[in-house]
Amino acid sequence: MSSARPPAPGAAPQTLGELGEFALIAEITRGLPAVDEVLLGPGDDAAVLAVDGPVLTTVDVLVEGVHFRRDWSEPYDVGRKAIAVNVADIEAMGGRAVGVVVGFSAPADTPLRWALEFARGLRDEATTAGVALLGGDVTRARDITVSVTVIGVLDGRPPVRRDGARPGQLVAICGRLGWAAAGVAVLGRGFRSPRAVVEAQRVPQVPYGQGAVAAGAGASAMIDVSDGLLGDLGHVARASGVVIDVDSSRFAVPDPLQAVAAATGSDPLRLILTGGEDHALAATFDSDRTLPDGWQVIGTVRELPAGGDPVVLVDGATWEGETGFDHFGRRS
Amino acid sequence: MSSARPPAPGAAPQTLGELGEFALIAEITRGLPAVDEVLLGPGDDAAVLAVDGPVLTTVDVLVEGVHFRRDWSEPYDVGRKAIAVNVADIEAMGGRAVGVVVGFSAPADTPLRWALEFARGLRDEATTAGVALLGGDVTRARDITVSVTVIGVLDGRPPVRRDGARPGQLVAICGRLGWAAAGVAVLGRGFRSPRAVVEAQRVPQVPYGQGAVAAGAGASAMIDVSDGLLGDLGHVARASGVVIDVDSSRFAVPDPLQAVAAATGSDPLRLILTGGEDHALAATFDSDRTLPDGWQVIGTVRELPAGGDPVVLVDGATWEGETGFDHFGRRS
Repeated sequence: MSSARPPAPGAAPQTLGELGEFALIAEITRGLPAVDEVLLGPGDDAAVLAVDGPVLTTVDVLVEGVHFRRDWSEPYDVGRKAIAVNVADIEAMGGRAVGVVVGFSAPADTPLRWALEFARGLRDEATTAGVALLGGDVTRARDITVSVTVIGVLDGRPPVRRDGARPGQLVAICGRLGWAAAGVAVLGRGFRSPRAVVEAQRVPQVPYGQGAVAAGAGASAMIDVSDGLLGDLGHVARASGVVIDVDSSRFAVPDPLQAVAAATGSDPLRLILTGGEDHALAATFDSDRTLPDGWQVIGTVRELPAGGDPVVLVDGATWEGETGFDHFGRRS
Repeated sequence: MSSARPPAPGAAPQTLGELGEFALIAEITRGLPAVDEVLLGPGDDAAVLAVDGPVLTTVDVLVEGVHFRRDWSEPYDVGRKAIAVNVADIEAMGGRAVGVVVGFSAPADTPLRWALEFARGLRDEATTAGVALLGGDVTRARDITVSVTVIGVLDGRPPVRRDGARPGQLVAICGRLGWAAAGVAVLGRGFRSPRAVVEAQRVPQVPYGQGAVAAGAGASAMIDVSDGLLGDLGHVARASGVVIDVDSSRFAVPDPLQAVAAATGSDPLRLILTGGEDHALAATFDSDRTLPDGWQVIGTVRELPAGGDPVVLVDGATWEGETGFDHFGRRS
């Protein structure tokens, strides 16, 4: 069904089509880190994980041209990002990610170097996050598409859901906000600096381990900020039936964001409040709790007024403008 | 990032772009069957499953133009197939599928009817297979791409791997072989009959529950036939270090396959031995075991001769021709 052909005898394969599906899977799963829970790794009909208690699972899909661009991101970074954005969802439940399975679709003429560097990124970020690569499916497609499904465990803790925010609580975050959006802003104008925001767009710095820390410290609701802080806190507000009021004075504007805002004539607060893809964690805590290191208060939870909507306010007022990202182009 | 726009006020949405990402997720997860193991279903950062003992997981990706064609398959059938091919992998480990997560990518101009019928197919096949839809990710892409990851449990049984075939054992199958390939043969020529093989190409009839039955009956190795019997038994032979000899006289040729072979001037045995996508189960059993109902012997396991390769033979001889399907166009 493809026009790809094996290379001439003796020639090294240069594209995915020449390498073949099974050889690519062998390459992706080569030299994987050992994870205690893995009873059976890649290569059979399914992997087998030893778990004790409930499991968490979620999927994220990255599509070329939507979530990454081959001219903006090295394949190594795309592999790292694919793992990071998924593990962040397990963090946001207060869980610990244990393993991932990867669906990889690409054109047959994809350079072999791209696929191998992508695989190296998958392996390295999985090692950093302490998760095993459990298996995958490789298939042909017009665009490169990566779907990662992660399996996590709770280590005896209850899951931290979105619907646990209660009036009087504090809202706190751990991790970066606005960096990836600043990266998009400069890359979109053809620049490659400030380097820190460009790198943040390529691979988010997920605060691995902080989801479990927050759960242990009494987080009652938690979410990872993938689409923008206001949009994602909106999910918490609606699920919990509360109003969340974000205090804009709580945010220090990091130098790189200040620089990008100045250079592009934009408001750095807009980057922080609405920029997605940094995968910070946002959680609610009782106000008498001591927050874990690395967490900072950025707002409060209020009671829903009679007849009111469960919304997110900024400094007590409605935010004017976009709050997040919808993948079919509608702004929410 | 998309040219899609909300419909005019009061107009019903007609495309995915008009409906929006979150509304589509709500539609896909509407009215899901209840599954005992689901502690938390779709709508949070991750789903939570109650499991007792090891979990199985695997992913399959279906791509428009590779695994299905919109002019050959109704969206309802694509949704059903996406679930069925995945659950088959859990069956092949002797497991019981419990839940799935779905990654769905599609162009913004995809007709809403297509997406909703696809979602209905997902829901119906999940109900038939007894699995819960645990969550999903919806994103924009040029082609429709569906990735399904399934989570299964073993209910106290050990997993049945590919490496457990032993010399002297029988090889048996449960389910259909060659039907989907016959469907491709007729659809590729512009015909829509025999209807049974066309339907088999659209949605495989996976023998749900038979993986666990085989495991209970002592299956020592098992695989699901996704790429073709000879190719998939080749995985078992290599993993186990044995030779598998398929006895072609064991296969009765069903009438629809006979009809397709006659009409297309092809060999019905080739369809049976090399046709993929029916997702029958193939397993090895000690020769003194009573096979479960629905299983039929089709060959034997032999010792690897000194210096020989772990291959699959047909009637004691090497099969001349293709044995299976490689997604980057190489024939294995």
